[in-house]
Amino acid sequence: MSSVKINYPKGQRFQHMGNHSAGQKRKQPLSYSNRGMSLEADLNLTNKQYLAGNQAIIHKKPTPIQVVKVDYPARAAAKITEAYYTQSSTTDYNGVYRGYYLDFEAKQTKNKTSFPLSNFHEHQIDHMKASCVHGGICFVIILFSTLDEHYFVPSDFLFKWWDQQFQPDGRKSIPLAALKKDCAQIPYGFNPRIPYLPFVDQLIDKKKENR
Amino acid sequence: MSSVKINYPKGQRFQHMGNHSAGQKRKQPLSYSNRGMSLEADLNLTNKQYLAGNQAIIHKKPTPIQVVKVDYPARAAAKITEAYYTQSSTTDYNGVYRGYYLDFEAKQTKNKTSFPLSNFHEHQIDHMKASCVHGGICFVIILFSTLDEHYFVPSDFLFKWWDQQFQPDGRKSIPLAALKKDCAQIPYGFNPRIPYLPFVDQLIDKKKENR
Repeated sequence: MSSVKINYPKGQRFQHMGNHSAGQKRKQPLSYSNRGMSLEADLNLTNKQYLAGNQAIIHKKPTPIQVVKVDYPARAAAKITEAYYTQSSTTDYNGVYRGYYLDFEAKQTKNKTSFPLSNFHEHQIDHMKASCVHGGICFVIILFSTLDEHYFVPSDFLFKWWDQQFQPDGRKSIPLAALKKDCAQIPYGFNPRIPYLPFVDQLIDKKKENR
Repeated sequence: MSSVKINYPKGQRFQHMGNHSAGQKRKQPLSYSNRGMSLEADLNLTNKQYLAGNQAIIHKKPTPIQVVKVDYPARAAAKITEAYYTQSSTTDYNGVYRGYYLDFEAKQTKNKTSFPLSNFHEHQIDHMKASCVHGGICFVIILFSTLDEHYFVPSDFLFKWWDQQFQPDGRKSIPLAALKKDCAQIPYGFNPRIPYLPFVDQLIDKKKENR
């Protein structure tokens, strides 16, 4: 891609589209599908759209931060002057939809052929496994950022691949081919941006059948 | 109370129990029921106990913080050097129990006769109302810290009191007498510390009856 990319503080990706000098050659066609937004921003927008449409109540949990020092300036808000990012013990997104508890994680990779399982922390998997036991609906949205492809990955599929890595000759990544075969691709849209609820409906239907 | 109280950084309350000089008189009997812990610490412990017992998956959401400046020292973790607390758009606690989405807030007051409704932000009430519509179980745990009494307040009761404050002659607080009459008091225990799930069971039973 010949576009200029700058990582802005909040994680939005800025893509400069124009002003290509005459000598530049584009190796790939310019993609307009994922204009200037990160997966997180896309999902936050999606959840806002679902909330506005009264379809589901899903929020991203704030990033956990350990605060060490706080200043209390006169006539001003408390200012945190020393703090550190800490690891979350859960997934990033949860909420309620059709009476069900939803719990999911969003991950992206620049890889083109597989998704490395090292993107997950073990406690995230443990959290999802426990949430499933208690009747929650768990899944992962994986973005292959180079391909601009979003996959809806049900927890059962994820757990199978997570667990096999500890076997002899276990793979440390999920091949894209396996995702293409067994998981659905989420079309990238406008409203909602990443329409994942129809795939949740399928999981709920399956859950009801298995009762 | 003649005990010395210091607010420690993480919100735990330290109570110095001994070394009363001979001349001191205790106006109240020394309470041992809420030893040195804040409501948040008590609930975090409770949720850990429920998690360890595989009874429910409930977590407190991290406090939302807006990060402005981050230093990246060589060979050390990223250090946040300027950040501010921001307001959450949801409640503090949520998770899954018996297949239901739970969503609740914990509040405390030093008042002895009523609970001021100003302890809530409107968006927290809106969030709970929306979560109820989608099938969630919502409630509030209110601690009267001076009395050391925890109340389990179902969302229906809360919404009724919240809404009446906007009527002519509406009250700006919930009288303790009303809580005593219509809501259950949660006994303070050891394991779990604040056993709120039995009261959630009652809400679930009532929900099933009304279907």
